[in-house]
Amino acid sequence: MNYKLIGKIISEILFGEIIFMIPAMILCFADGRHEAGAAFIISMSVIVVISGVIYLLSRNAKNSLGAKDGFVCVGLAWIILSLTGCLPFFISGEIPSYIDALFETVSGFTTTGASILTDIESLSRGMLYWRSFSHWLGGMGVLVFLLAIVPLSKKDSGYMLHLLRSESPGPDVGKIVPKMKHTAMILYLMYFALTAADFIFLVLGRMPVFDAICTAFGTAGTGGFGIRSDSIAGYSPYIQIVCTVFMLLFGVNFNCYYLIVSGQFKNLLKNEELRLYFGIFFGAVILITVNTIGYFPTIGEAIRHVSFQVSSIMTTTGFCTVDFDLWPSFSKSIIVCLMVIGASAGSTGGGFKCSRMLLLVKSLRRSIRRMLHPQKIQSIRADGQSVDEKIVENANNYLIAYVFIIIVSYLLISIDGFSSTTNFTAVLSCLNNIGPGLDTVGPVGNFSGFGPISKIILIFDMLAGRLEIFPILVLFSTSAWSRTGK
Amino acid sequence: MNYKLIGKIISEILFGEIIFMIPAMILCFADGRHEAGAAFIISMSVIVVISGVIYLLSRNAKNSLGAKDGFVCVGLAWIILSLTGCLPFFISGEIPSYIDALFETVSGFTTTGASILTDIESLSRGMLYWRSFSHWLGGMGVLVFLLAIVPLSKKDSGYMLHLLRSESPGPDVGKIVPKMKHTAMILYLMYFALTAADFIFLVLGRMPVFDAICTAFGTAGTGGFGIRSDSIAGYSPYIQIVCTVFMLLFGVNFNCYYLIVSGQFKNLLKNEELRLYFGIFFGAVILITVNTIGYFPTIGEAIRHVSFQVSSIMTTTGFCTVDFDLWPSFSKSIIVCLMVIGASAGSTGGGFKCSRMLLLVKSLRRSIRRMLHPQKIQSIRADGQSVDEKIVENANNYLIAYVFIIIVSYLLISIDGFSSTTNFTAVLSCLNNIGPGLDTVGPVGNFSGFGPISKIILIFDMLAGRLEIFPILVLFSTSAWSRTGK
Repeated sequence: MNYKLIGKIISEILFGEIIFMIPAMILCFADGRHEAGAAFIISMSVIVVISGVIYLLSRNAKNSLGAKDGFVCVGLAWIILSLTGCLPFFISGEIPSYIDALFETVSGFTTTGASILTDIESLSRGMLYWRSFSHWLGGMGVLVFLLAIVPLSKKDSGYMLHLLRSESPGPDVGKIVPKMKHTAMILYLMYFALTAADFIFLVLGRMPVFDAICTAFGTAGTGGFGIRSDSIAGYSPYIQIVCTVFMLLFGVNFNCYYLIVSGQFKNLLKNEELRLYFGIFFGAVILITVNTIGYFPTIGEAIRHVSFQVSSIMTTTGFCTVDFDLWPSFSKSIIVCLMVIGASAGSTGGGFKCSRMLLLVKSLRRSIRRMLHPQKIQSIRADGQSVDEKIVENANNYLIAYVFIIIVSYLLISIDGFSSTTNFTAVLSCLNNIGPGLDTVGPVGNFSGFGPISKIILIFDMLAGRLEIFPILVLFSTSAWSRTGK
Repeated sequence: MNYKLIGKIISEILFGEIIFMIPAMILCFADGRHEAGAAFIISMSVIVVISGVIYLLSRNAKNSLGAKDGFVCVGLAWIILSLTGCLPFFISGEIPSYIDALFETVSGFTTTGASILTDIESLSRGMLYWRSFSHWLGGMGVLVFLLAIVPLSKKDSGYMLHLLRSESPGPDVGKIVPKMKHTAMILYLMYFALTAADFIFLVLGRMPVFDAICTAFGTAGTGGFGIRSDSIAGYSPYIQIVCTVFMLLFGVNFNCYYLIVSGQFKNLLKNEELRLYFGIFFGAVILITVNTIGYFPTIGEAIRHVSFQVSSIMTTTGFCTVDFDLWPSFSKSIIVCLMVIGASAGSTGGGFKCSRMLLLVKSLRRSIRRMLHPQKIQSIRADGQSVDEKIVENANNYLIAYVFIIIVSYLLISIDGFSSTTNFTAVLSCLNNIGPGLDTVGPVGNFSGFGPISKIILIFDMLAGRLEIFPILVLFSTSAWSRTGK
C-alpha cells in the first residue's frame, strides 16, 4: 500500500477543512460569539498541526495508487475529516460530549441530517453554518472537490480515478467525460450552479439570507440539517415548494444534467433510472395523498405536504414540514420503502439507489428466465445497452453487505431498549443517510437518547452508507492491511 | 410444457390427500362430531371428482419433465392441495370463512403455524388432527412423499429429480444417494423414525396420546400449530424440554443423520452449517438468558424457557411457552434475527437457511478480497470443497427475491392499519414459515385481524417461503406460460 500518497492526500484534505472553517469563524466573531470563534481558532490550530505532521511524514510520495489504496484512502479521509471537523462543536461546549459532536459532524458530512441536538436554536450561527456547510461539502464528495481544485499533472489524473470511483454514489459514475479532473470540475460547476439557483429562489421568497444559505446547503447535499427545531415547517408554502423541487433535482443523476447541457435529449429520455425515479415519486405522492387526505384541511395542502415529505425522504434529505409518524400505517410503510430505495446514482442523495434496484430486479427476472430456459444465454440491458456482468455482481454484493449491516446494527443498537420500530428505522435512516426515522427518531424526535455504543454504530452506518459500504468495510478487512497481499 | 404429466402428478397427490383425510374423518365420528365427519366425507367426495377429472384429462402423459415443468408442477400442486385441503374446515363451519380456512391450511402445509383461530379448543379433534397432520406432510414435502411411496419405473426417476429439487428446502438437496427414489425413501424413513421417537418421549412424559400425536406432527414439520390456546405453556417442564430438543433436531440437515447412520462421522464434523446452526442456537440462548434474567424466578427456568423459544423460532416451528413480546428490546431483536436466519438446508425448517447465509457471507468476503486484489482468482469453499458458482449465484438471486417479497408484502398488508412492527414481523413470520411474530401477531395474538387481501398476500408469502420462492414466482412469469419459449 502507498501509505505516503494516502497521507499526502489526507493532509491536503485537512488543509482544505481549515480553509472551509474560516467563514464560520468570522461569522462567530461578527455575531459577538467570541467563545465559539475561539473554538474554531483552536480547532484550526489543532488541524494545522495534524495536517502538518502527516504532510512531513509523507514527503516524496510516489504517484501510484491502486484500487486498494483508493478504498483505504477514501475511508480514512472521511473518518479523519469527521474526527477533526467536530472539534469546534466540542471545544466551544455547544455540544458538550465528543461522541455527540462526532455524531453530528458525521451526520453532516455523510448528508444524513440525523441530529442529537434537542435545542437547535441555542447554537451560534457560526456553528449552524459549519453544520450545514458540511452537508454541501459531503454531498458531492470531499475528494472530488480536491480533484476539482488542486492542479494535477497528467500523471496524477490516473490514480485519481480510484478516488472518484470510491467516493461517488451509485454504480455508474465517471461516465460524463473521460478525463477525471474535467469530470470533477463539471460536477462541481453544476453542483454550484444548482445550489446558487436554490439560494436565489429561497431569497426571492423572503427567506433571511443566512437561513437561505444553510437551507440551500442542506438541500444541495440532500443532508437535511434544519436551523430551526421545526425544520422547514415554519417557512412559507412558497419556500416549502422551492425546497420540494430542489430536493428532487439534487436526487437526479448529475449525468442527466450534463446530457441536458450538452443537448443530448435523446439519451436523456432513454435513461431508465430517471423515469423510475420520477415514477416512484409521483406514485408515492398519489398513494399517500389519497391515504392521508383526512389529515389536512384542503387537498392542496395535502399535496404540498405529501410531495414535500416524499421528496425529502426519497432523496434522503430529511427536511420535514409535518410529522409523518402520525400518518396511517400504509403511508408510513411507503415512507419506509422510500427510505430504502433512495435517490439516483450519481446524485448527492443516498439510499440503495434506483439504478441499483432496477439492476437487481432485472437480475432476478433473468434468473427466473434462466431457470425456465437453462440453455439460453441472457444478458441484462439498461438504457438500451448490455450491462457488464461485473456491475451486476457488484450490485449483488452490495445487497448482501447492505442487509448484513442492517441486521447487525439493528441487533446491536437494540441494547438501548428502544422500540423495534425506532431501532429499525434509526438504522435505515443512518445507513441510507436520511435523517429522521419513525417513533423516537421520528420527524419531531432525535437521536440524543441513544447510548455511546449505539451512536458509534450509527456513525459507522452513516459512513458506510455515504461511501457505498465497501471503502468502510475494507478498513476492517485484514487483507487490506497485510503486507504480503499487495 | 408437459401439462398432461403435471396433471397426472397432481391428480395422484389429490388422491393421496383423500387417503390422509380418512383418520381425521374416523376421529370425528368416534368423538360423535357427526357434522365434522360429514364435512370430511363431502370434502373427500369433491376432491375425488376433481382428482378424477384431472386424471381423465391427463391420460397418456409422456414421461418427460423439464426444469420448467418441475417448478410449475410443484407450485401448482401445493396451491391445489391447499385449496382442497381446507374444505373440511370450511364445510363443517368450524372455520366459517373460506379465506380463513385456506389461510389455516396453507399455514399447515407450509409448516408455518400462523393461525387465524381465536378459540382453538372449540375445534373438533378430527379437525385438530388434520390441521397438525398437514404440518407433518408439508414438512418433508408432498411430492417427496409421492416419490417415496409410488412405484416408479427407471424412466420416471429421471424427471422426479426436478420435483425433488423444487420442493426440498435449502440449496443442497439430492446429495444423500444418487438415486432419487432411494433418497426420498431414506428421507421419509428418517423423518418417520424421528417423529416416532418424539411421540414416545412425549407419551413417556404423560402427555395424552392425542396431544402427543399432534405435538409430534407439529414438531417434526417444524410447523407449530398447538392444540391449546396457550401452545406448550400448559405442559410439564419435561415435555417442554423434549420439544426443545426435538425442534432443534428437526432443524438439522437430514444429510447429517444419513452421515451418522452410515458412520461418516468425519464428514459430519466438517459440516460448517451444522456448526453454525448450533453456534447460533447456543449464542442466542446465552445472550437472551442474560438479558431476560429478571423476567424469570430462577436461572433454570430462564434457561428452559429461553432455549425453548430460541429453538422454536430458529427452527421456524413457532411453539411458545412464554410471551417473548414482553421481553426487552435486545432479546426481541435477536428473535427477529433468528426468524430471518432460520434452520438448516435439507431440514423441515424454513427461513433463509444457515447454509445460504454462510454462502452469502463468504461471497461478500470474496468480493472485498476481489476489490483489493482484482488480479487474483478466488473461489468459495464450503465443507472443505469448492462451491459451484451457480449455487452462489442462486443464493444471490434468492436474496434479491427474498428482500423484494418482504418489501412488497410489508407495503401491501399495511393497508389494514396495524403497527409497523406487526406488519413487518407478520411478513417475516409467514415468509420464513414460523408462526408468531411480534405485537398483534405475537405469541399470544393471532392473524385473525387482517383483511382478506392481506391474508391472501400472507398465504402467498407462506407458499413462497416453503417452496423457496422460485416455484411460486415462476407461476407469475409470462415466460413460464408462453408456448414459444420451450
